Amino acid sequence: MAPEDGGTGRRGRGRPAGSRSGTPETRDRILAAAREEFSARGYDKTSIRSIAKSAGVDSSLVHHYFGAKEQIFAASIELSFEPAFGVPDVLAAGPEGVGERLARFFVAIWENPVSRAPMLAILRSAVTNDTAAAVLRGIVLRRLLERVASELKVPEPRLRAELAGAQMIGIAMMRYVIRIEPLASADMEEVVALVAPTLQRYLTDPGPVTG
Amino acid sequence: MAPEDGGTGRRGRGRPAGSRSGTPETRDRILAAAREEFSARGYDKTSIRSIAKSAGVDSSLVHHYFGAKEQIFAASIELSFEPAFGVPDVLAAGPEGVGERLARFFVAIWENPVSRAPMLAILRSAVTNDTAAAVLRGIVLRRLLERVASELKVPEPRLRAELAGAQMIGIAMMRYVIRIEPLASADMEEVVALVAPTLQRYLTDPGPVTG
Repeated sequence: MAPEDGGTGRRGRGRPAGSRSGTPETRDRILAAAREEFSARGYDKTSIRSIAKSAGVDSSLVHHYFGAKEQIFAASIELSFEPAFGVPDVLAAGPEGVGERLARFFVAIWENPVSRAPMLAILRSAVTNDTAAAVLRGIVLRRLLERVASELKVPEPRLRAELAGAQMIGIAMMRYVIRIEPLASADMEEVVALVAPTLQRYLTDPGPVTG
Repeated sequence: MAPEDGGTGRRGRGRPAGSRSGTPETRDRILAAAREEFSARGYDKTSIRSIAKSAGVDSSLVHHYFGAKEQIFAASIELSFEPAFGVPDVLAAGPEGVGERLARFFVAIWENPVSRAPMLAILRSAVTNDTAAAVLRGIVLRRLLERVASELKVPEPRLRAELAGAQMIGIAMMRYVIRIEPLASADMEEVVALVAPTLQRYLTDPGPVTG
């Protein structure tokens, strides 16, 4: 991917005084700034330049570490979706009660604004920009869906994992984005109790047998 | 809301040659243009001016019929969501098989690009703009949720209707917006078979008894 510069920071010329370059800290700082920018402004309105400005470095350094906007968006998604990558471990604990465990796992991520905000921001970008949707699709497929499907002992495990995911994404949309009552302020224990059997069935019940 | 002008079209001055004004046809033409504009550009980028231009009328005439941008967006949603307003009739046919009927009803709306495109466009606007979300929320509540809830014989009928809606919205997001496989090209009969028991349970099964 991005070439290494051996920590010399040669490509960081022209950056504001006081900024560092060519170190892992710089890369992390750029990535944190990228996540902030994508969250606040969406994919369309974020540019390499705006990320560089927010990180206090030269644009060339952003290019150096991440390449094009598409790639830094991908890195930003990987960071924002980090909590969700724990799903395969939830499934690996076995089929009994997996619906409830999974519902609780998602709710815990969402009810914490620190993990919720960047995930919703990425959903927003994907809904409004095809490139952002393609990047999200690739990461969900590679980092989540393949691993989830390998844990399931049902026909069409990927399709079922996606239906379970669709249920949870739909709830997030209605609760946090459209904010429609009573779901927007429902007790999440009640939501978990209602949703758990849905996830349990998709992920563990081999029926219905279809054509 | 918008004042009546008795069909005189007095406020349509300055419009391009050949346009009509002050007639029900003009109102319909403006509304159709609004729906097109909101679909193609989203809530943020659509203006009264761009709607007027697309409809071939003066901006004042758009104001005259619909008031502010928020109101014409509301009218545009009412038009786009017209197919979904049939949900209460689907429920009124009785609890037996309602999950399957409802899943099929949604799938029929989505699989037709003519009804799908404007609904997805409104979802996009609501996801990216708080005013658009508030308008959508009000219409879903008033035109759909209240009527749906009155058809259901379960505890917390609104919450359950929303969980069913969340399942279907999530599927639409993953199939048509993020376009993740295998859901993006799945046989919808198979999806209906898998989803029907979920909707059936939310809408007719009084359990689980919580708290």
